[in-house]
Amino acid sequence: MIEESTICAISTPPGNGAIAIVRLSGKDALTITDKVFSSRKESISLVEQEANTIHYGTLSDGTEIIDEVLVSIFKSPHSYTGEDLVEISCHGSEYIQQRILQLLIKNGAQHAGPGEFTMRAFLNGKMDLSQAEAVADLIASDAKGSHQLAIRQMRGGFSREIAGLREKLLHFISMIELELDFGEEDVEFADRTELVLLLDEIKELTQSLIDSFQKGNVIKNGVPVAITGKPNVGKSTLLNYLLNEDKAIVSHIAGTTRDVIEDVLTIDEFRFRLIDTAGLRKTKDTIETLGIEKTYEKIDKAYVILYLIDANQPIAEINRLIGKIKKRMDKTDKKLVVLLNKVDFLTEKELAERKLKKNFPQLDKRDHLLCISAKNKYNLKTLYELLPKIIRENGASQPDVIVSNTRHFEALSKAKEALDRAVTGLDTGMSSDFLAQDIREVLHYLGEITGQITNDEVLGNIFKNFCIGK
Amino acid sequence: MIEESTICAISTPPGNGAIAIVRLSGKDALTITDKVFSSRKESISLVEQEANTIHYGTLSDGTEIIDEVLVSIFKSPHSYTGEDLVEISCHGSEYIQQRILQLLIKNGAQHAGPGEFTMRAFLNGKMDLSQAEAVADLIASDAKGSHQLAIRQMRGGFSREIAGLREKLLHFISMIELELDFGEEDVEFADRTELVLLLDEIKELTQSLIDSFQKGNVIKNGVPVAITGKPNVGKSTLLNYLLNEDKAIVSHIAGTTRDVIEDVLTIDEFRFRLIDTAGLRKTKDTIETLGIEKTYEKIDKAYVILYLIDANQPIAEINRLIGKIKKRMDKTDKKLVVLLNKVDFLTEKELAERKLKKNFPQLDKRDHLLCISAKNKYNLKTLYELLPKIIRENGASQPDVIVSNTRHFEALSKAKEALDRAVTGLDTGMSSDFLAQDIREVLHYLGEITGQITNDEVLGNIFKNFCIGK
Repeated sequence: MIEESTICAISTPPGNGAIAIVRLSGKDALTITDKVFSSRKESISLVEQEANTIHYGTLSDGTEIIDEVLVSIFKSPHSYTGEDLVEISCHGSEYIQQRILQLLIKNGAQHAGPGEFTMRAFLNGKMDLSQAEAVADLIASDAKGSHQLAIRQMRGGFSREIAGLREKLLHFISMIELELDFGEEDVEFADRTELVLLLDEIKELTQSLIDSFQKGNVIKNGVPVAITGKPNVGKSTLLNYLLNEDKAIVSHIAGTTRDVIEDVLTIDEFRFRLIDTAGLRKTKDTIETLGIEKTYEKIDKAYVILYLIDANQPIAEINRLIGKIKKRMDKTDKKLVVLLNKVDFLTEKELAERKLKKNFPQLDKRDHLLCISAKNKYNLKTLYELLPKIIRENGASQPDVIVSNTRHFEALSKAKEALDRAVTGLDTGMSSDFLAQDIREVLHYLGEITGQITNDEVLGNIFKNFCIGK
Repeated sequence: MIEESTICAISTPPGNGAIAIVRLSGKDALTITDKVFSSRKESISLVEQEANTIHYGTLSDGTEIIDEVLVSIFKSPHSYTGEDLVEISCHGSEYIQQRILQLLIKNGAQHAGPGEFTMRAFLNGKMDLSQAEAVADLIASDAKGSHQLAIRQMRGGFSREIAGLREKLLHFISMIELELDFGEEDVEFADRTELVLLLDEIKELTQSLIDSFQKGNVIKNGVPVAITGKPNVGKSTLLNYLLNEDKAIVSHIAGTTRDVIEDVLTIDEFRFRLIDTAGLRKTKDTIETLGIEKTYEKIDKAYVILYLIDANQPIAEINRLIGKIKKRMDKTDKKLVVLLNKVDFLTEKELAERKLKKNFPQLDKRDHLLCISAKNKYNLKTLYELLPKIIRENGASQPDVIVSNTRHFEALSKAKEALDRAVTGLDTGMSSDFLAQDIREVLHYLGEITGQITNDEVLGNIFKNFCIGK
C-alpha cells in the first residue's frame, strides 16, 4: 500500500540555517518536482535526466517564486529508499522550508511519517531491520562509543552472520519436516550430527551476543554510575569534582524513564550517567541523608558503583562495610570501585596499609580500590581515568559482536531458550515433531532481528521513534 | 588572499536531524575530500568526476569509519561560490557533523567565517553585493512579505537597473574629465542635454527607492504598531484580543535593540510588532498607567498607531484628543487608526454620529476611524483586516522597487544629495570640475549598493551578520 504514495519531509534539523533539505520519495517524486521546478538554462524534465545528478533552478508556486534551489535526483533502485528520490536543497529559512513542503503536498505528495524513508528502504530490501534501527541510533549517537556501535550495526554488524546461520537452519527444518511427512516410516533426512554442530554454532553466537548486551546498552545509553556510601563520607564533594573537571563534558539531561535530571559526564568515548545526584548537588554533606533502601535502589540501577568509605577507620570496619556491599552485589555483573576517602588524615603507614588490596580479602580481581581525598583532590585524576578503563576492559574489546538494542536482546534470549530445548531434545532422542517446533521457534526469533520475520506492529514500534525526514 | 584557502562549515541548521550538510569550497575542495572519502563501488577520484554529480561512499578518519555519506561535487566557475565546491550529506547527528568538520580541517581545510561562502560568491562575481545581502534576508525571512522582498532582491531587483544607469553615467564622467584635460579651451565633449536627461532618470529612480525604504523596512522587519490612549480606555483588552485571535500567529521575540520581549502578530503576509506591550499584558486595565513621555516614545517608534479613545465622551472632547495626537504625528509618514472604544454604551444615534468621519475634521483621508468594543469584540475583525490593508496600500503595490536595507537607503540618500547638486549646477552653469566631482560622488554611492565600490570594512560589516555555512 504505502509504496503507492510519494512522501515528502524536511530532512535537515529544525530551525533556520544556511541550507535545508526537503526530501521526496516514491514513484511520482520526479514528476511532482517537475511540476514546480524550472531549470534556469532550458526547460528540462527531471524524469529524463540521469540519476545522481544535480540541477539548479527555481521552485515556483504558480507565478510566485519560492526559492532558487538545487535538485538532486536519484532513481530506483539506486537510492536510499530504493524508490525514485529527490532532494531539494533550499535556502534554510523555516518559512521557505514550510512553503516547499506545502507546495509538494499540493502537487500530490504526502507528508512522511517518522522514519518512513528508512522503513521504505527496509521494505524494499535496501537494508535489514537491524541496519534500519542502527540509522536511528547513528543519528542519536553523541560520543565515540555509541557512534562506532551504530556505524558497525548499520554496515551489517552481526545481523549478516545471523542471517547466514538462519539460512542453514532453514535447510534442516525442511529436511525434518520431510521426515514428518513420511510419518511412521522412521526415516532421517536431516543429518543429526551436522544439525548438532550447527545448533552449537548458533548457540555460541547467540550466547556471546546476549552476554554483550549489558555492555552494548551501557555504551549506547551511557554508563549508569552510583555514588554511594554513609552520610558525611564526602559524596557531594566527589560529585562536584567530577562535574567541575575541565576534561569532562557535563550536561544535565531529562531522564528517559522518569522526569529526573541526570548529570552526564562524557569521558573519552563514553558517557557516564550519574544516578540520583540531584540530592547530592543540592544538599551540604552534613544534611545529606539517604535511607538504606534508597541506596540499594541506586546500586541496582548502576553498572559502576563508586562506594565511598571513610579511610580513618580500622581495617576491620572497612572490611565489614565492603562485605555489606559485596553481598548486595553478589552474582551481578556490576563493577565496584571502593574509594577510601579522607586519606589525608592517615599516617604514612596507615595509608600504605589501605593501598594494599590484599588487606581487603573480600575484593576480587574485578573490583577496584583507590585511596583518595575528595576534598584535597588527591588521586582523583586516577579515578577519572579509571572510569573509561573499566568500560573498555569489559567489552569494548570485541565491538563487532555487541548488541545494544533491547529488542534484539529479547529476541536472542528467546532464540536461546528454544535452542537449549532443541539441543537437549537431540541428546535425549526427542521426536522429530517436537524438534521441528523448537527449531521453528529459533528461526522465528532470529528472523525477528533481521526483519525476515516481522509484522506491522513491530515495524510501527520501531519507526515511530525515528525523526521525520529519515 | 582568502581565495587561496579552502573553507568548510556545517551548512544545515544546528542540532540533530535526519540529514546534515557539511560544505567545502576552494581550490582544494575536491582533493581534500578525496583524502577522506572512498566510494563503495570502486576507487574513484572526485577530481576526475563530472561536475554536478553525486557519489555514495564512506568517510574515514584513518581506519575509523565516520559515516556513510553522499558527496555532491560542483566545479569552478559553476558553483555557488564560483570555486570548486563539495557538499557532504551525512547522517544528522551533531557528533558526526563535528567529526566530519574536524576531519576536513585536519586534512587542510579552514573553518569558514560567517557568510564566507557568499562573500566568495560576491568576490568571484557570481552575484552583486545587494544580491549577497538578500541571501541573508532570505534565510531570515519568516513571512510572505519579507520573503518576496528578499527573493526579488536576490534575483537582481533594482540593483541591475542601478548598475545600468551607473554605466551610462561612467561614460559621461569620462567625457567631462576629457574636457578638464583640455583645460582652458572651453570644449564640451559631454552632451549637456543628454546628461540632464540621464541625471533626471537616475534622480527619479533614486527618489522612488528612497521613498520605498520605510515600507521596505517595515515589510522586512515587521510593522511597528503602538497601542496607545488614556488609562482605562481598554488597551490591554484590545491587546488580548489581538494576541488570542486564532488567525494570528503570535510569538514573543527578543527585540534587536533592547532586551525586551515584543509580541509579534503575523497577519496574511505581514508581521506586526506590538511595541512595549509587556506592561499592557501584565497589568490590569485599572492600574495601567503610562506617562505622557512614554506614550510619545511609543508613537515615535511606531509606523501604525492604534489610538484608543473612550467613545462615551462628547464629540468635541474626542476631537480635542485627536488634535493632540495629530499634532504629535505632524509631517510624519505614520498611519493613524483612531479606535472609538466602548461603543456598546452609546445610543444608536450617538454611534451613528461617531461612525461619520466628517464629524472629526482633523482626520484626513489617510487616517482611519473605527467604532469598536474591545470587551464585546464588536468590529474587531474589521480592525484585524485593516492592519494588512494599510501596509498593502502603502507600497506593497510596487514591490520591485522596494529598498529594505539600511545600508542601501543611506547610500541612496547620499547619491541623491550629490545628484541634486549636479542638477542644480548644470542649471546654473557650474564649472566642469565641480560637476565632475558631484558626478563622481553619485557614481561612488551607487557603486556602493551593488558592490562595484567597496572595501574590507564594508564587506566585514555585511558578512559578519550572516550565519556560518552560508
